[in-house]
Parts: sequence; C-alpha cells; structure tokens
Amino acid sequence: MKTQHGIKVAVIGGGSSYTPELVEGLLKSYEEMPIAELWLVDIEEGKHKLEIVGNLAKRMVKKSGLPIEVHLTLDRREAIKDADFVSTQIRVGLLEARKLDEHIPISHGVIGQETTGPGGMFKALRTVPVILDICRDIEELAPNAWMLNFTNPAGMITEAVTKYSRVRSVGLCNSPINFKKFLAEAYQVDESKVLPEFVGINHLHWVTSALVNGKERMPELLAGKGEYSAKNVPTLGWDPEFLQSLGAVPTYYLKYYYMMNEMFDEMKESLEKNGTRADVVSRVEKELFELYANEELEEKPKQLEQRGGAFYSEAAVHLMRSLYTGRNDIQTLNVANNGIFDFLPDNASIEVNCVVTSEGPIPLVPQHIPEHVKGLLHAVKTYESLAIDAAVSGDRGLALQAMAHHPLVPSVSAAKVLLDEMLEAHRQYLPNFF
Amino acid sequence: MKTQHGIKVAVIGGGSSYTPELVEGLLKSYEEMPIAELWLVDIEEGKHKLEIVGNLAKRMVKKSGLPIEVHLTLDRREAIKDADFVSTQIRVGLLEARKLDEHIPISHGVIGQETTGPGGMFKALRTVPVILDICRDIEELAPNAWMLNFTNPAGMITEAVTKYSRVRSVGLCNSPINFKKFLAEAYQVDESKVLPEFVGINHLHWVTSALVNGKERMPELLAGKGEYSAKNVPTLGWDPEFLQSLGAVPTYYLKYYYMMNEMFDEMKESLEKNGTRADVVSRVEKELFELYANEELEEKPKQLEQRGGAFYSEAAVHLMRSLYTGRNDIQTLNVANNGIFDFLPDNASIEVNCVVTSEGPIPLVPQHIPEHVKGLLHAVKTYESLAIDAAVSGDRGLALQAMAHHPLVPSVSAAKVLLDEMLEAHRQYLPNFF
Amino acid sequence: MKTQHGIKVAVIGGGSSYTPELVEGLLKSYEEMPIAELWLVDIEEGKHKLEIVGNLAKRMVKKSGLPIEVHLTLDRREAIKDADFVSTQIRVGLLEARKLDEHIPISHGVIGQETTGPGGMFKALRTVPVILDICRDIEELAPNAWMLNFTNPAGMITEAVTKYSRVRSVGLCNSPINFKKFLAEAYQVDESKVLPEFVGINHLHWVTSALVNGKERMPELLAGKGEYSAKNVPTLGWDPEFLQSLGAVPTYYLKYYYMMNEMFDEMKESLEKNGTRADVVSRVEKELFELYANEELEEKPKQLEQRGGAFYSEAAVHLMRSLYTGRNDIQTLNVANNGIFDFLPDNASIEVNCVVTSEGPIPLVPQHIPEHVKGLLHAVKTYESLAIDAAVSGDRGLALQAMAHHPLVPSVSAAKVLLDEMLEAHRQYLPNFF
Amino acid sequence: MKTQHGIKVAVIGGGSSYTPELVEGLLKSYEEMPIAELWLVDIEEGKHKLEIVGNLAKRMVKKSGLPIEVHLTLDRREAIKDADFVSTQIRVGLLEARKLDEHIPISHGVIGQETTGPGGMFKALRTVPVILDICRDIEELAPNAWMLNFTNPAGMITEAVTKYSRVRSVGLCNSPINFKKFLAEAYQVDESKVLPEFVGINHLHWVTSALVNGKERMPELLAGKGEYSAKNVPTLGWDPEFLQSLGAVPTYYLKYYYMMNEMFDEMKESLEKNGTRADVVSRVEKELFELYANEELEEKPKQLEQRGGAFYSEAAVHLMRSLYTGRNDIQTLNVANNGIFDFLPDNASIEVNCVVTSEGPIPLVPQHIPEHVKGLLHAVKTYESLAIDAAVSGDRGLALQAMAHHPLVPSVSAAKVLLDEMLEAHRQYLPNFF
Repeated sequence: MKTQHGIKVAVIGGGSSYTPELVEGLLKSYEEMPIAELWLVDIEEGKHKLEIVGNLAKRMVKKSGLPIEVHLTLDRREAIKDADFVSTQIRVGLLEARKLDEHIPISHGVIGQETTGPGGMFKALRTVPVILDICRDIEELAPNAWMLNFTNPAGMITEAVTKYSRVRSVGLCNSPINFKKFLAEAYQVDESKVLPEFVGINHLHWVTSALVNGKERMPELLAGKGEYSAKNVPTLGWDPEFLQSLGAVPTYYLKYYYMMNEMFDEMKESLEKNGTRADVVSRVEKELFELYANEELEEKPKQLEQRGGAFYSEAAVHLMRSLYTGRNDIQTLNVANNGIFDFLPDNASIEVNCVVTSEGPIPLVPQHIPEHVKGLLHAVKTYESLAIDAAVSGDRGLALQAMAHHPLVPSVSAAKVLLDEMLEAHRQYLPNFF
Repeated sequence: MKTQHGIKVAVIGGGSSYTPELVEGLLKSYEEMPIAELWLVDIEEGKHKLEIVGNLAKRMVKKSGLPIEVHLTLDRREAIKDADFVSTQIRVGLLEARKLDEHIPISHGVIGQETTGPGGMFKALRTVPVILDICRDIEELAPNAWMLNFTNPAGMITEAVTKYSRVRSVGLCNSPINFKKFLAEAYQVDESKVLPEFVGINHLHWVTSALVNGKERMPELLAGKGEYSAKNVPTLGWDPEFLQSLGAVPTYYLKYYYMMNEMFDEMKESLEKNGTRADVVSRVEKELFELYANEELEEKPKQLEQRGGAFYSEAAVHLMRSLYTGRNDIQTLNVANNGIFDFLPDNASIEVNCVVTSEGPIPLVPQHIPEHVKGLLHAVKTYESLAIDAAVSGDRGLALQAMAHHPLVPSVSAAKVLLDEMLEAHRQYLPNFF
Repeated sequence: MKTQHGIKVAVIGGGSSYTPELVEGLLKSYEEMPIAELWLVDIEEGKHKLEIVGNLAKRMVKKSGLPIEVHLTLDRREAIKDADFVSTQIRVGLLEARKLDEHIPISHGVIGQETTGPGGMFKALRTVPVILDICRDIEELAPNAWMLNFTNPAGMITEAVTKYSRVRSVGLCNSPINFKKFLAEAYQVDESKVLPEFVGINHLHWVTSALVNGKERMPELLAGKGEYSAKNVPTLGWDPEFLQSLGAVPTYYLKYYYMMNEMFDEMKESLEKNGTRADVVSRVEKELFELYANEELEEKPKQLEQRGGAFYSEAAVHLMRSLYTGRNDIQTLNVANNGIFDFLPDNASIEVNCVVTSEGPIPLVPQHIPEHVKGLLHAVKTYESLAIDAAVSGDRGLALQAMAHHPLVPSVSAAKVLLDEMLEAHRQYLPNFF
Repeated sequence: MKTQHGIKVAVIGGGSSYTPELVEGLLKSYEEMPIAELWLVDIEEGKHKLEIVGNLAKRMVKKSGLPIEVHLTLDRREAIKDADFVSTQIRVGLLEARKLDEHIPISHGVIGQETTGPGGMFKALRTVPVILDICRDIEELAPNAWMLNFTNPAGMITEAVTKYSRVRSVGLCNSPINFKKFLAEAYQVDESKVLPEFVGINHLHWVTSALVNGKERMPELLAGKGEYSAKNVPTLGWDPEFLQSLGAVPTYYLKYYYMMNEMFDEMKESLEKNGTRADVVSRVEKELFELYANEELEEKPKQLEQRGGAFYSEAAVHLMRSLYTGRNDIQTLNVANNGIFDFLPDNASIEVNCVVTSEGPIPLVPQHIPEHVKGLLHAVKTYESLAIDAAVSGDRGLALQAMAHHPLVPSVSAAKVLLDEMLEAHRQYLPNFF
C-alpha cells in the first residue's frame, strides 16, 4: 500500500480515554509509517472529552517534533474522506448503556457482561447499525481505506461489516497480544520468538500450541505453570484436570461458560459491593480525564495502563504498519472464516493467526482444533450470526432466537423476559426495533 | 435381501415387556416377511421375565397358526448365529441404574433424564461396551445380519456401532412414527399420505416441513394447532412466538434444553411426589408381567400401550420388512451422517428421512436446516461423540470433557462432582473405568 | 400442489416432433392429473410445424373424449400466464445451427456433438439467454409454476435457471428412464422393482448400483451382460477390464471422453457418408411431419420412436404427476447440487435420484461415488459453469476459458480457433457477444 | 527443534550430481544450523558415483575448516539412525528408466515426460515402494526426523508418505523458489520483499498474486512482462489473451496440458534430433562427474547450474534451517491438503505457501483460487491418488484407472496399450505388479 499524499488516519470515537496510547504508538512507529494527518472524530455528546484528549494529542505530537497534523472534528465525513486507515472505538449509549447490559441480566440470574451473554448481544444491537453507517461513508469517501475495528463485541462487529458492506476491515482484540507478552516474559525471550496458536472467535478462543524459541511449551502451560489472566476479568483459576484433558488454554472470557455459576456469584457479589464494571470504569475514566486536562502533560500517563485495554494501541499500530509496509509478519486478527473452520459459515468472523501483507491478512490454517470445543464454538457463533441479522433487520423474532440459543441463557422464557426488558431499556438506541 | 432357509430374528433383551408388541407385528406382516425362527435372548438376571414373555410369545404364535419357531435362550451366540436380523432392546443395570441416572443429577440441580444430560451419558457409558460385545458376535456369527438398535440412547449406540464395528446397523426411535401418526390423525388421512421432514439427531430433532396429501401444513402447526407430546415426556407447552420465529417444531425432548428451568422444577416436584420415572416404569412393568403370566392370555394386552414406547415395534417391523423386500419406502432412521450435515463429522449418527432399500437406508437430503439450531445440534453431538469415545476407552479425561461440554451441565465444577459421584454409583457396570 | 381452476400446461417449442408423445402421455395419466388446458407455443419460424403438430394434438384429444382444451399460439406470455407447468423443448437456430455445432469441431479434429464439447458449448451459448427470457415471463406471469426443462444441454440449462432466476425448475433427460427400462426388461420385472443409482451430471453420469427386486445386479452388469446403448449414440462397446476396475456403468455419452479417438473417427466417417447427425434427424423429421399432416391420424405414429428421444414424454408426465399429486416416488432428475457432491459448487446442476414430493424433488444421498471419476466430473462441470457465465455475460474471455478447459479440447490454441470460427458462424444467435 | 548431539543429515541418493550444491548450502548456513554429521548413502550400482561426489564433498568441507564429518555408505540404516533430517533424491531405474518413460508414450502419440503423463506415472510406480521402504527405516530408527523429499514426482511421493507412513515429511520443488528469484530480479528487490501466491499441486500450480515490496504486480505479469521459464522445460510462449482471462500465471509444466499438441510436436522433433531429455541429462552428468573427479576441485563447479535443478539445494537448506531454528518464514512446500482446497481429499499433497515453524510448515490459506482451474487440478489429483494406490497395491485395475483418467491420455484403449508396454518395460522395478 502506498498513499500519494502522506498517510491519513481517522479515529472514530477519538475522544476515548485510549487515544493517548494510540498517539504514542503512532509517534513511535513514525519512521516506518509516517502519518501525515491524524483526525479525531467524536459525536456532540463527546465534544468535551474530545477536546481534552485532542489537546493532549496535540501536545504529544508537538513534543515529538514530527510533522503530523492533528485535527479534532465532529464531522465524521470530513475525517473519513481519503483516509488510509479508519479506526473505530465507539460505545453507543456510553457507559450508561453498559451499566444496563451488566445489571439487567444479573437481576434475572444470568451472566451480565459487556461482550457476551445478553449484555454483549444488546451492545451489538446498538452498535452494528452505527458501524454500518460509518461503512457507508467509507464506501463513498475512502473506498480503499482499511477499517480497524476495536469496538466491542469486536468479532460480531467485524462480521457485520463483512456481511453488510464492501469495506475492507479487520477486527482487533488485545487478548492475543497480551498472551504473547505473557509468554515472552515467562520464558524471557523476545516477543518475535513466540508463536502461540489461537483457535476460535473473538473472546472465545483457545490457545492450542505455544512455540517459544522453537520449542512447544503447551504441556507445561497445561500443567499449571501458564495460568494467566488480564486485569479486566475476574481471576478465578482453571481446574487443572479439565485443562489437561482439554489440551488447550481457554481465553479468560471462556470462564463465563466453563465456570458459569462461579462467575455469576462473583459478579453478583461485586455488583453489590462496587456496582457494575461500568461503574468502576466510570470512576477510572473520570480520573484519567482529570490528568489529561493538565496542560503540562505531554505524554501518555502511566495510569492509563490500569484502564484494562492494555496494548490495544500496540496491536493497532502493528497492524497499520504491516498493512502499510507489507511486512508479512504474524498477527492474531478477526477475519472472515472462508472455510477455515469447516463447521462455520464462510462469512463468520473468526480469530486466528494471520500473515499481514499489504493486501490484507492471510490466515494460517489452524493446526490443532480440539474436537471438544467445536460444539460450544458453533453454538456461540450461531447466536452471534442471529444477533447480527437481528441488529440489521430489527426483527424481534430473530432477536428472540439469538437470545434463546445463547448458551448462557437457560430457557426460552428467560430469553423472552430479558429481551422485553432490555429492548425497552435501550429503546432510544434501537430505532430498527421500534 | 433373500435368505436361504427362512428368516431368523434374534431379539437381545427378549425378556423386555415390549416383546409382545414386536411379536404381534411380526405375525401381522408374516405374508410379506415370513419369519421362520424367533430367538428371544436374555441374561441370567432376566431369566424369569424371559420365560414369562417367551411363553406368551409362544401362545401368540400358536394362536396365529403360523409356522414360526420361538426359541428362548441365555446363549446369545446361539441366537445370533446366521440371524438375518438382530434387534437389541437392553438396559444395562436395569431400572435400578436408571433410577440413579435420574436421581443423582437432580440432587445437584441438573436435569436427570435417561437419554440426555448426565443420566443419558452414563446410560451410554454402561451400554456401549455391551453393545460392541454383541457386535463382535455378529461380525463372527452373522456378518450379513442387520442390527436394529432400539436401545437408548439410540443415537449414541448407533454411532458407537458405526465407529467401532463392521456390523450393518440402523438406529430406531418411536418419536418420528408417532409424529407421523399424529399428523395422519389430525388431518384424517392415511399415514402414507404424510411426509414430515426430520432434521437432527436422536431425541434432538426438529420437524421442518409437514406435507399432508401434497400440502405444506407447517404454518398451521407453528400457529399452535400442531402441539403434540408423547406420554413419556412432561407436556409443557411451547411458547408460540418462539415456535414461529424458529420455523420448526422441536421434538418434545428439546424441552430439556429450551425449557431447562421449568423441566427441572417439574422433575424435581414429580420426584418428590412419585419417585423417579424409573420408579413409575417399575410399577407399570410389574403389572404388565402379572398380565403376561396369565396362561390364558394369547395376545398383546391393551395396557402395554401405556408403557411409553408406543409403536416401537411397528417401526421395527416396517424397517425389517423394507430391508427384506426392498420396498424403497420412506422411514425416519438413525444413520451415519456422511456429509449430510456439513458441520458434523461423517461418522456421527443423525436422525433423518431415508428410503429403505434391500441394501439399507439411503438418506434424503434435508431440505430445510434452520440456521438457528445448528449450534445446539453441534454442541450436543460434540458431547455425544466424546462420551462414546470415553465409553470405549474408559478415559476419565474424555468423560470429563463430555460432561463439561454438555449444554445442560452448568460448569466444569458441576461436571466433576457429577462425574465422580456417578462413576462410583455405576462402578460395577463400568469396568473400563476401573 | 392443488390448482384452483384445473391444470394448465404450456409447452414452449410446442411445434416439436416430440409433442405427440407428450400428448399421448397426458391423455394416459388424465385420471390422476386432469389437465384442463394445453398450450402449444412456438416462434414465427415454427408456425407451420406448430399447426401440423397442434392439429394432430387436437385430433388425439378429441378421440380420447377428455375435456382438455388445446391452444396453439405464437404469444408466449399468453401461454405462460397462470400455467402450472411450463415445459421447454426448444432449439435456438434450429437444425441448421446443430449442423454447424457438429461440423466445425470435426473439421478441426475435435469431437463435434450437440450436447458436449465445443458443439454443446455453443448450443448453450445460444440457448441460455432465450431460456432466461422465458424465466423472466414465468417469474412475472406464473411465479408458482414448475418449469420442466428438456432443452439440451439440459444440465447446463437447468443450472443457468438456478443461478440466474427465481423460477422453480427441474431438468430432465431420457437416459435414466431408458436404463431403468433396460433393467426391467433384462430381468423381466416391473419397472417399479428396479432401483439403479445414478451419480454425476447430465450426459456424464455413472450407474453405480442396480437393485433389481432387492438384489444388487451390478457385478453381473460389469461382467458384460449389461451392455446397453441408446439409438441416438454410436454403440462402440466398453472395454470389460476397464468397466470392472471402474466398478460402474458409464452413460453412453461418456464414450466421447473414454473413447475419444474411436468416437472421433467414427463421427468423421459417418459425416462423410451420411452428413452430420443433424442431417439425419432432418430427414427423419421431414418424414414425421408428413405423417402428422395426415388428417386421419389420431394417435402418435410408431415411427416417432425412432426419432431418438425415446420415453422423454413418459419422463415428463411422471414428473408432472408426482409434483401434482405428491406421490413421493423416485425419479432421476437434474437438480441443484447443494452439497451432495462436496467437490462441486452448491449451485451446480447434478443428475441424481430424487423423491418427488409436491414441493419438488428431494435428492437421495448417492451411496457410491467412485473416486476414479471425481476429477473428470469436476473438469466437465468447471467447463459448464464457465460456459453458462459466458452465455449470460457475453464475455469472450470466459468463453475462451470454458473452451480451453473442456477435456475434449486439446489445447488453448485449438480453443481459440474453434471459438473464433464458431462465434462467427452463430453470430446472429449470440447478441450478447457482439 | 533442538538436537542433543549436533545435527545429523542423511542424504539418500547421495551420489547424485546435485550433492555438491547441497554441500555448499550446508556450509554457507553453518552458523545458524551447525551440521555435525553428513551421511551420503547410495546403492551398490551407484557406488562409483558416490565415491566421486563424496570425495568432492570431503574436500569442500575440509576447505571450509568447519567441524563436519562426511560419511559415505551403502548402509542406509546406519545413515538414517538418529538423523535429524533425511533428504531423498533418488532415481529408481536410473536414467535408463527415464528414457523409457519419455520414449514409449511419444511412440504412441502421447506426451512423454518424467513427472507427468504416463512417464510420471511409471516413475511413481517404481519409486513409491522404495520411498516407503525408506520410511519404514525412519519410523524405526529416527522417528523424530524430518524427511525432505526432492525425488520426483515430488507431489505424489509426498502424498504416498502421508498416506502410508507416520514419517514427518515435506515435499520440495525448485519451481517456486525460481519464480521468487525471477520476481526479485525483475523488480530489483531483495527476495524477502517478494510474496507470490502459489495455488495447486506439484508441477501443476498457478501463481495468482505477486506482491513485490507491498504492491500487486500480477496485472503487469499477465500483460506479458512476466513471462518466465526454466531451463529444463521448452519455452513456448503463453497466449496473452488466455493468460489475461485466466488471471494467473501457470507453471511451465502446465504447458503439457494447455499446449498439448505443440509440446508433443516439439518433444517428438527433439527426440528425433537429440534423443530424449534423459539422453541429454546423461551427457551433462558424464561431464559433471569428470569435473567432480578432479582432486583439485574444492568447490561446486559452475557447470552444475546448467544441470536443470537450479536452487534445489537452496530450497532444501532454507527448509532445514527454518525447521531447526523456528524461523517462521514463508516458503512454498508440498504438504497435506487437510481441507485447504475443499474439493480435494484431506490427504492429497498440495503445493502452497507455508510458514515454516520448528514443528513443521503451517499452510497459509490461498486467497485466490481461480474457478477456471479447479476441474483440471482435480482431474490430475484424481490420477495421482489412483496411481499412488496402484503403486502400493500392485493392482493392475487401479493402474488402468489412473492411466485412463489422466487428462493427457486420449482414451481407454490408449491407456491399455501404454500400460501393457510400460509394465513390461519396467518389470524389474515393479515387483508389486508381477
């Protein structure tokens, strides 16, 4: 990929607290990928945050001395026009909506989480139409752009874009890059010497092999030395007998399935003590924006690392760089299935290792797909596909089918109660349904 | 298929209370399929029942005046030798074991049922090795015989035979024939004028089309006029909105999945009031055998119809007759998948419509596979395949994976508790594991 | 299927010499399928023949005493409006074009045949656009009609309709019904007692099993007792060693592939002696129409049977009857693949056994697909799919790819020469290309 | 991969004229992959050549000053024992057999070539049993070794090993590396900046994309600037219209299919003038061995490059190095299909891009599989699989099916003539068949 007038990057949801990390990444990689314009876009309600974050971004660029223009705007189309990369990091309904996604299911005895279960489903219902709207703009104004999607539920959003637009897009999650960093640190090697195999879909993958410096380390990891969890997920431990007979390391998000009861109890207790995870994040964000507003701050503050999405921007910058330079390195990305998992539809999004060329990611054929997990994987993907179609059509029957077939929802009757209550609660963000 | 010396039928588990129905069926179809020898086999513990049932069978044959020899034996190999058909209707561990299968899960808050959930899994663990033992005899003594399997969980047993033996076998359930009879009665047509499409696996299928006299009646059935349930399953009603958005009629066994909470509550209440289903069946059987023992009885008593397995023997006799005569009619059977459902393994057993030729059933390609149900279907089949392999190998890790990935088991920790307690309870029937 | 006002049948190409056979069939099956209206349509150039054939049809109906209206028309839309069945038996460019299809390839050393090779390809190029035009009318005027396609190359035409229209269609060939009749006669049983398995595509299938009265007769057929060929194809014999190691009986059209050199030589010699097959047919047709014109003739003349397409109309009437009554019998038809042959695209047309319900044919899963033939089958289907897309788009590059990848065409350079000459020769019937 | 006692490499067919190139490669890459022992093995008939080449190898090592032991032996098992890499470069029947493979088909009007057509088939029939014998030794004596197979027909040999042994093996051809070098040179970039996509099987692949420094160069190559051919294949040019409508660059071996007539004529003419290719190679080899025998020669002579297999050893050394170090770079290799091409069997060998890890090659999912070529690819693979099974079983019927279904063989009768004559001619090397 070679742009003619210098690289233009548009960040939809530019007022996010994550932005300083992204800016730092772009500055660090300037030599290989010289950004000319960085456009931070947000909506009217996010104007204040956009200004705070945007001004920090400008101070960071200024300090670096690099010739990058930083633009703040509420005009999405202006930002997208002729962009080379459009990254999305939006939250439709803001943290208030997330709070409902977490709270309502718990009140009915069901896991309440922002990316899976009924909560994740409603986040998708709200977000998919907005993302497809952005895609319409990209198709018109920047048809050759790559869309990098961080917006959760990242797998479903990527699948919606694949199914319902012509935009070239890739979905990204920080979970794989975190696992690589864990491995590199645990074995004291450079990250480039580490090759774990990821099998599955976003927030529902299994690590089935872990080559470190040319040696397979999976047996050790399964024997318990490799337990690992990120900051933003409760750290209940896995049962060692289960792990060894499984022969793979599940992502921490799989605890919602494999330890449903325990996770529910913990969430409920935590909810009573600290409020929802949305409440916690709310407090953290408030503190971050106070720091950002300090006009003497010219770099990403350390505290951002506690926000949860560690290394998101590193993942993003790596991806942009490889697409730009044709580096052909291996990254773990959300892409269309196209027959890789022969039991899932071709247009399903999956999360697997890819070689990133200048024409996009080329998936590696997964070498170890445990028979054990195919059913669960298919069950969750079935729910996801139904939910995406429901989001686009506003079809209540489809939404009911998605909810009722979600493995974390115990019955059709529970699905109906949750559907009714949550449709009502998020009504303003679900015009397709009303 | 043409035998040389008259047709020989061996019934493994011949002392079952169902046998008189089978005998009645064989007598009725004598003209088309002239049985020469009927061998009823049972084990030492079943000797008393075998004699009661066997003598009734002899009286029934005598009354008919047909030249059929009825043999009672405890020597399975003698019965199998040169048989044309071997039918199996066994219960390893008898009703006592079933009682445990139903009771233990309920005591841990999980559905307890004899063909699905942890109960069905343990029935499979006990039964698969015995069935494969029978297969070894058939391979040696009657390699051209057809094995008709009624033994539950019928789908898993059929799959075990496909995977681990060279015996030609077909699995049978009375649920499809009951649905056909329901349709024929509801629309007042002959059964031959009815063609429902069954999609799925044993005890987990969906009816996706219902041609009656050349007209599609599915819309009416979904609108609520078609509700239907057999006597041996609680009759909670389906939610109409769910059914219509699903576009298919689930088998009543799917209530364990779609109405898990309600079914659990009902089972628990019933358990406290009437004991397990095994207890109920126990009482019914006691009464039946009292009737059978009456030396004046020369026909199948009416009361047998309340036993639960209505039309089992009709299904069996139809199948034998079509295999014998090459009738090429359509029956719903459990056969190897071989690519029909492209998301399931080739050797998975599935339950679909087949044309029954003299060389065996030829499946019809299902015309309507609802996207909605693929995940659930795959999840249950994954559990089944793991459980079969566990039964054969005695591998505890595989058994844990099967249990933990069963959609009705809420967590790995629950799976472990159930596995430990049930392995211990059924220890004498699980030599592979100890 | 139940029509409201009596059954209406439209025959596109009604002036064909085959029509009297079709009329005879409709009269014979009147009791089960009471036709109310029979519309014979043709184009201006065929008006004379239409009148001759149409008047014979009227006399035949009159003689039968049945209340069927026979309409002759040049207005296709009038005929199609509200039809229940539309059957097509057209020849774009008439026998003159066929003559070129047969002659030009031969002159360049390549098989010249009307349904395969370069000749079949050009027949498809001429015919597909006309058929799709008819489909547009059906979609508008008779959206619930079944289209029965006899027009050659029948497999490609059926595939074109599947890909490029919403019309419900089935493709038909007389080759399978002839094979069944051969078996029935050879073993002196009723046709209903015969079940051969057909595997492949139109004019490129293999018979892989032959159940006769419940007994597999394939070993005998392969041992040479079953050789068989139709009147319209040269009867070179198959090599017995080849047949036995193949384990299947190829259709006689496969001689163009398996005996390419011999067939070419024979065709060339015959061409020099008798002209093309088109010339022969021309003479036969001339004689037939002289007979038809005889106003005293009130039935199908015997001589029609020598025309070549024996039992075409029997196949057609059987299909209509089963679609109308929901007879659920087994017929061999051209339908969409939809995963049956997992190495061919879903929308490829294939020729296999089907159960014919009132909602259409349901394919039986082929039980014996010889590994040996998959490559050839795929190669010919690849050519067919390319040729269909070329016909619709008029893309010369696609046409070149189709021609060059046809197994009977020896090189790219030969493909180019043939393409150039034949495009020019058929120019008036190929508006898409010019 | 980490060996304990230094790396041991065994070269079966070590007396080959290619060996000096391999030795040069091992010396060059010593720092990354320090070979401790190099074993050159040959058979009794090759003893003289082995000594000449082996002594040259010893002089080359001595000159390098590296601590590598060079062993010459006729005892294959001694060489294989505990080897890390076993490379095979054998020719069963020597050049005399090749001469027959080239000559006999031509005399019957069919392409005569050593890796495809009847010639390639007989080379496979002779070679597969010998290779599987070697595999038996590796399974016993060096179960963790990687087998690198250069022996032609390399794709078939690799597939035979996959199907009939447990040895870890990879097939190699110099054609892909030559294409990469051509691209690098044409665009004046480093080879690491070049990423062509190869789609197909050995000697039957298409290049479908050519990224050079992050830019797609395929349109230019198709427009004629990219024509390319190796020294060991006649250089007839491709038709530009054909290439552009194909959208891919065929390997030069595809000329045997796409330009069958022209290639045949050229081969026949050349045969009459210069004898077979085997004769030419014979002369070149004679000259090479005269050079090798010169005791003052301490390096690979320049003349070797004209031998034909340019860069074979570079490909081999790259592969060993990446397997040894876990370099995770992209190489084009022959591996098991495992669903990559969904129309080919899982155990078919295919030739595609792979990431080479220390645990073996992981294929990249091909991004552009032209519909046009699927049929031809499947047809040739069908022949290959039949021929492999024939080689193992010695089943004449399978051999006939393989020959008759080869796209270059015009008829069953030609197949029989070729089969008879070639079986007789190679009788001493085909014990399975006699």
